[in-house]
Amino acid sequence: DYQHVQVPFEITLWIMLASLAKIGFHLYNKLPSVVPESCLLIFVGLIMGGIIYGLNDKSPPVMDSDIFFLYLLPPIVLDAGYFMPSRPFFENIGTILLYAVVGTIWNVFGIGFSLYGICQVKAFRLQDVSLLHNLLFGSLIAAVDPVAVLAVFEEIHVNEKLHILVFGESLLNDAVTVVLYKLFRSFCEMPTIKTVDIFAGVGKFFVVGLGGVLVGLIFGMTAAFTTRFTKDIRVIEPLFVFLYSYLSYLTAEMFHLSGIVAIIACAMGMKRYVEANISLKSHTTVKYFMKMWSSVSDTLIFIFLGVSTIGENHEWNWPYICFTVIFCLIWRALGVLVLTFFVNRFHVNTITSKDQFIIAYGGLRGAICFSLVFLLPDFHRKKLFIAATTVVILFTVFIQGMTIRPLVDLLAVKRKRESAPTVGEQIHIRFLDHLLAGIEDICGHWGQYYWKDKLEYFNSKYLQKILLREYDQPKSSIVLLYEKLERKHAIELAEAGQLSHAPSHPSLLCSVFLCSSNDRTVIMDKKLEDTLNPDVLENIQEILARNLYRIRRTGPAYNRHTLPGETEPVEHAKEILILRHKSL
Amino acid sequence: DYQHVQVPFEITLWIMLASLAKIGFHLYNKLPSVVPESCLLIFVGLIMGGIIYGLNDKSPPVMDSDIFFLYLLPPIVLDAGYFMPSRPFFENIGTILLYAVVGTIWNVFGIGFSLYGICQVKAFRLQDVSLLHNLLFGSLIAAVDPVAVLAVFEEIHVNEKLHILVFGESLLNDAVTVVLYKLFRSFCEMPTIKTVDIFAGVGKFFVVGLGGVLVGLIFGMTAAFTTRFTKDIRVIEPLFVFLYSYLSYLTAEMFHLSGIVAIIACAMGMKRYVEANISLKSHTTVKYFMKMWSSVSDTLIFIFLGVSTIGENHEWNWPYICFTVIFCLIWRALGVLVLTFFVNRFHVNTITSKDQFIIAYGGLRGAICFSLVFLLPDFHRKKLFIAATTVVILFTVFIQGMTIRPLVDLLAVKRKRESAPTVGEQIHIRFLDHLLAGIEDICGHWGQYYWKDKLEYFNSKYLQKILLREYDQPKSSIVLLYEKLERKHAIELAEAGQLSHAPSHPSLLCSVFLCSSNDRTVIMDKKLEDTLNPDVLENIQEILARNLYRIRRTGPAYNRHTLPGETEPVEHAKEILILRHKSL
Repeated sequence: DYQHVQVPFEITLWIMLASLAKIGFHLYNKLPSVVPESCLLIFVGLIMGGIIYGLNDKSPPVMDSDIFFLYLLPPIVLDAGYFMPSRPFFENIGTILLYAVVGTIWNVFGIGFSLYGICQVKAFRLQDVSLLHNLLFGSLIAAVDPVAVLAVFEEIHVNEKLHILVFGESLLNDAVTVVLYKLFRSFCEMPTIKTVDIFAGVGKFFVVGLGGVLVGLIFGMTAAFTTRFTKDIRVIEPLFVFLYSYLSYLTAEMFHLSGIVAIIACAMGMKRYVEANISLKSHTTVKYFMKMWSSVSDTLIFIFLGVSTIGENHEWNWPYICFTVIFCLIWRALGVLVLTFFVNRFHVNTITSKDQFIIAYGGLRGAICFSLVFLLPDFHRKKLFIAATTVVILFTVFIQGMTIRPLVDLLAVKRKRESAPTVGEQIHIRFLDHLLAGIEDICGHWGQYYWKDKLEYFNSKYLQKILLREYDQPKSSIVLLYEKLERKHAIELAEAGQLSHAPSHPSLLCSVFLCSSNDRTVIMDKKLEDTLNPDVLENIQEILARNLYRIRRTGPAYNRHTLPGETEPVEHAKEILILRHKSL
Repeated sequence: DYQHVQVPFEITLWIMLASLAKIGFHLYNKLPSVVPESCLLIFVGLIMGGIIYGLNDKSPPVMDSDIFFLYLLPPIVLDAGYFMPSRPFFENIGTILLYAVVGTIWNVFGIGFSLYGICQVKAFRLQDVSLLHNLLFGSLIAAVDPVAVLAVFEEIHVNEKLHILVFGESLLNDAVTVVLYKLFRSFCEMPTIKTVDIFAGVGKFFVVGLGGVLVGLIFGMTAAFTTRFTKDIRVIEPLFVFLYSYLSYLTAEMFHLSGIVAIIACAMGMKRYVEANISLKSHTTVKYFMKMWSSVSDTLIFIFLGVSTIGENHEWNWPYICFTVIFCLIWRALGVLVLTFFVNRFHVNTITSKDQFIIAYGGLRGAICFSLVFLLPDFHRKKLFIAATTVVILFTVFIQGMTIRPLVDLLAVKRKRESAPTVGEQIHIRFLDHLLAGIEDICGHWGQYYWKDKLEYFNSKYLQKILLREYDQPKSSIVLLYEKLERKHAIELAEAGQLSHAPSHPSLLCSVFLCSSNDRTVIMDKKLEDTLNPDVLENIQEILARNLYRIRRTGPAYNRHTLPGETEPVEHAKEILILRHKSL
């Protein structure tokens, strides 16, 4: 009775295949370090598409755009938004927006007009492709794809600023792409275009983008508010995080706003409140499931991309296709150069020319272009556009994706710092923020620190009272940071206990637990000194010192495929506190 | 553009509604302690159905049987199977099977024949309902529903044996119900019934049941084997648990085997290997997500049950309906009495008459009957059957579900022990198991202990080598238990650290960590004694003793809505180890 279970059975099998493919790659350790996973997955997809094509003798099914936009994209964007490193993001928000908005418009018109120029060459037999169609094509091919960028940039570990610039751009350009794509598509269907339509299009940018942010924030705040009341039913806490963010995406899509922007705003908005309200285990589940879901979605997207490539949907007009690839590269490079020139004039911390090269080179295209090109209204050159899009995607993912790592090595681009910042560093950063906010306030200059301070004030004064379950006195941010680290620390302890895994060596385990208390011992020392004579104290310190060889580490930085505190065991033990004890 | 997002949007909204309803109940602490949650949810569903009926003036949509069987039921059964307390289950497997197979057949024929008798009374105008139709109806109404049983029995905390008897029966009778239901349905459509068909039906029992177990075990072992290779991609580990169990369910359904039996076999089979292979965080995610999913499914089922009740699908022939309820009660009570009589003759640990009453009274009907009755082929009395089924479900869930708790109190039925067994107890139980296995081996009596021992041997000799990633020397089961407890302990510690939540009182936290090491200290003492003079040692012991006031507790027993180690904080601290230290 296969009919009866067909739909869920096939979906489960596809997911299973994707997961098994993933496991397969990782069994050979060398493979993923040379070829990005996205390429391997597309390759698997190509093979499968070939098999289906060979067996059925017809084109394999293409990825349904609805499935992509409604089910596969949201988990990836949610994961990206939830784990977005907010500090570098807000520090560079101006630059990111400039790249995302001005840069994308620049690319769309650049590619559109120059392809129209190519169409005028009689030898290529492309005179029937109008300017509008070229612009429409430009609008879908110009957008850098967050899924492809994430997949590649996660593996090359460039410095945080560079990463957030490319990744932030790829996320936020969704608003621009949506507007331009819909605008040109409606223009294509209109008999005449009035000037007012063009102005309406410009206005739409703000509506689509800001509307998305608004929808996201509303749902994010509602989610935070809801988790205030889940104390008695912990098990469904994680559900709300997923439900509200998905609703924000769907609602935004419903009103033709930018769903990607909405879900990012929702995730970033709710994160800190939800994190404070829900239990630790719920939070582990949220994080883990988000990673898992986005990982599966991402795998499915690349496999489907491969499968959909095979078939007879293509019109291979090579001049058009080749020039598309070339223009995509040229216009992006030019755009980055020009925009960065302006950005660098206003910033002390400039973007180096190496970074600029990586930003330009990292402009990967992916499944969003692919889905948009299939959503085009039917017209006689649609197959040409599909072919060109496919080639651009494969070119960027394979050629650029595979060469970017060697290039980063060759250029010696500044890498991400491997170790997470220490507590001392974090406290100093906080302190400097407050100081700078004060300076800005005195100068009358309303910079980012000023606004950050105001926002923090508003948050602790009003928002937290409404959204948090256990609202105590507003604590200073340093105390909050300390608390957070304490909690992180406690979890890591358990992991260390589990990692050492050796109840047959109880002294080892014991030492882990003893060491855990070492930073508190400093505070305890005073108490002890009252009750113990110095001789005994020295002895105790000696015992402690012998056992103090494992110190807390804060988790490693953002990576979509691993969870904090999982990848590296507590290896590089810092022995600072031992010294501190000895010096007492 | 509502059309575009309609499907996911409505699904998300339904889930959201269900979750919010759940939160709503728990805000008023008194409500869930009087009325079972299932009743409240049905009530919410009734109100919503009424609103839909009032607004649209037509029957609200009934729960789709496909949605129920393919999407809502599997998570609940998976959760039940994965968290099934295997010891009481296998200890009582004979009794459970007797109730599930013989008891269900008894009920089906009892209810079927007596309702046929009622149909012969001319005053009721039911002469057109044939014997076969009555038996078909009997086959769907006789089965006790696992979802309803779980929902009620989880809240009343009866002793473990009683719980597993009712719950195990409700799970395993699926095989019988499936066979009988399909048999009678095909008989209804056949012109004549041959004797060979009846024998084929009897043979099918074994095929459906054992086939389900086989499919489940195959998928379970494959799942365990797959998780051997997930070391490098921890994030997708939880996925495999869900995918394989769902595939086992779908595959079994595809071959007309019992999906419920398959998914339970799969979950029980893979649990211990998967648990050993995947990381601790993955396992938390698996457990949490299973609970969450089953909780949501269960909520949706009851709400839909309420919604579907409203409408014009019913034919209210009250004599038939009333006699159905009465016969359901009578035949179940008789069945339990007769079967228990036989069971008690072969067991030392008998089932008391109080327990028998609760078993008979706990035979709740639920969504499975409801879905089966809608799956009936169309015939002119289908609406009567729907009405009777609805009334039986509402009667059992509301009247029996709400009165069972007072009855348990009134009869003073033996409750579940509140505290989990201590390490000492667990080790003794293990020890006795081995002893009994030895005695049985010497006697030549192949009882459960003998088989358990053989299975354990086979497991450690062959299965673990294939299925486990880190296969060391086969450890004795006591060492394994100790390891497991150690790991549990480490997690609890972290939780205690999180619970105490007070970095401003570092000495408190510190003491928790110090206390954690107390049971290891005993072993350490020897080492310390070599290096320290007795005076210093005494001082250290004094410090430790002052801090030793929190001792490990193993997690609380099974409950579907909470996770182990979450409900109760570490309150009732045992101070045994302090005494031990003092006595040194």
